[in-house]
Amino acid sequence: MKLISYNYNEQEHYGILTPEGIIDLSTRLGQQFCDLKSLIAGGALKRIQCYLNESPDFTEQEVKYLPVITRPNKILCVGMNYADKRVEFNQTDPAPTLFVRFPDSQAGHKCPIIKPSITNEFDYEGELAVIIGKDGFHIKAEDALSHVAGYSCYMDGSVRDWQHSWFTAGKNWPKTGGFGPCLTTSDEIPDPTNLTISTYLNNNRVQHDNTSNLIHKIPELIAYISLFTELSAGDVIITGSPGGVGKKRVPPLFMKAGDCIEVEIEKIGRLTNFITDEVTPTI
Amino acid sequence: MKLISYNYNEQEHYGILTPEGIIDLSTRLGQQFCDLKSLIAGGALKRIQCYLNESPDFTEQEVKYLPVITRPNKILCVGMNYADKRVEFNQTDPAPTLFVRFPDSQAGHKCPIIKPSITNEFDYEGELAVIIGKDGFHIKAEDALSHVAGYSCYMDGSVRDWQHSWFTAGKNWPKTGGFGPCLTTSDEIPDPTNLTISTYLNNNRVQHDNTSNLIHKIPELIAYISLFTELSAGDVIITGSPGGVGKKRVPPLFMKAGDCIEVEIEKIGRLTNFITDEVTPTI
Repeated sequence: MKLISYNYNEQEHYGILTPEGIIDLSTRLGQQFCDLKSLIAGGALKRIQCYLNESPDFTEQEVKYLPVITRPNKILCVGMNYADKRVEFNQTDPAPTLFVRFPDSQAGHKCPIIKPSITNEFDYEGELAVIIGKDGFHIKAEDALSHVAGYSCYMDGSVRDWQHSWFTAGKNWPKTGGFGPCLTTSDEIPDPTNLTISTYLNNNRVQHDNTSNLIHKIPELIAYISLFTELSAGDVIITGSPGGVGKKRVPPLFMKAGDCIEVEIEKIGRLTNFITDEVTPTI
Repeated sequence: MKLISYNYNEQEHYGILTPEGIIDLSTRLGQQFCDLKSLIAGGALKRIQCYLNESPDFTEQEVKYLPVITRPNKILCVGMNYADKRVEFNQTDPAPTLFVRFPDSQAGHKCPIIKPSITNEFDYEGELAVIIGKDGFHIKAEDALSHVAGYSCYMDGSVRDWQHSWFTAGKNWPKTGGFGPCLTTSDEIPDPTNLTISTYLNNNRVQHDNTSNLIHKIPELIAYISLFTELSAGDVIITGSPGGVGKKRVPPLFMKAGDCIEVEIEKIGRLTNFITDEVTPTI
């Protein structure tokens, strides 16, 4: 099952994405669950399968995609988690590199990704996103996948010249993190450690790897993170990017207005975003 | 005016702290503003001065302090922002070091601070916290102080052996960040760059400095942060700790269960917390 968040008539909705269109859940369950996060927190993912045979309410063209989870409590991003990327950035610390994104740094599928005017080093990173389904603290690695609601694609847009070793500024400009198109529920991806992941800049493949090459696997990441902070439904863990980022190419390859950036992951889909320039405030 | 958040009868309240006791605002304004953050966001700080002459509703002993802002949207922490601390940690990057705390890592005045069982390097950092009063993006340094609602004390409890150069794990264990006792409104602190700040571990002064020695001053920090992320009412900027932390002493001096840790800042007050051991889940 593929779940999405979207705007329809300027109102936030969530629903099921099918090949025939979108089955809207907000009209059916909105009084109980205001958004996809609260639906997941309410343990209602299985229950909504009963709507799968109903007729779609909207076509994809009628809605505007939002980030899959619009307001996660916590977005934890893993850096340097593929061997190639670690070599590119000369990372030797064996612990998972972890930084935080704020929810307003995200953008939905097909929405503009905003290149900050301050930088000429706006870089792409295609990543697998894990969406937590069940609260947990001190989760054991062997239980970790039972805490996952599903998976999505993420384009962790990075302002390299503001990244530093603590990442905060470089990863938090508004609408620099593409998140979508959908959450594929974990029953359709029983093994998240064997998914092909590719990033395309203007249809040229710039990153290509498999999640089998993740250094810190998903169960280990969930165990590690939940050792120091409680995870709750709707939280997002972005698992890191393969090698091939623009900063480390010769010559470097950065994103600019008009570019199309896409992240495709097996069994999930293809996240598409277009780069636009930041409109700086008139002073 | 000194504002606080607290529990009374297991319910979250906010109010004005006076020498005679607490003037409860939740009973007076709760229908309009559910918490202190929404009161600030509603621009009601001046309006509540009309309650200052009323009789207190509670004594301090009747309530349980909560973190001054219980659920900030963003908590941005500045590292290495006093000269002595930079020397201690050999920090040479000229940009403000910035990391993120999650709201559930906070604890109120007089509440237990929890030492994670995994570490023997649980360290103190006394800091001045800035609470944002007005939304802003790309705020100019010369306008920055008009975006401040007030100031508080912060004890940025740090798990040094999990800190890394990205800070996330080391700074986010539950209830490791003391925040309080109160927000002193900015009209009482027109110049936040001349405040004595001291940290006491079991009544021994272990840090002592003045905010005049902040390397990145508060207006500069607000301008820098709001360049990449929008600030909104109730957001918290923790401005960094003076030198003298436990990790860099010979021999090192870390916090353990039973210790009393306090942060005192001129014109704000003294934040007091007691260290307790984490109760690890039975496996």
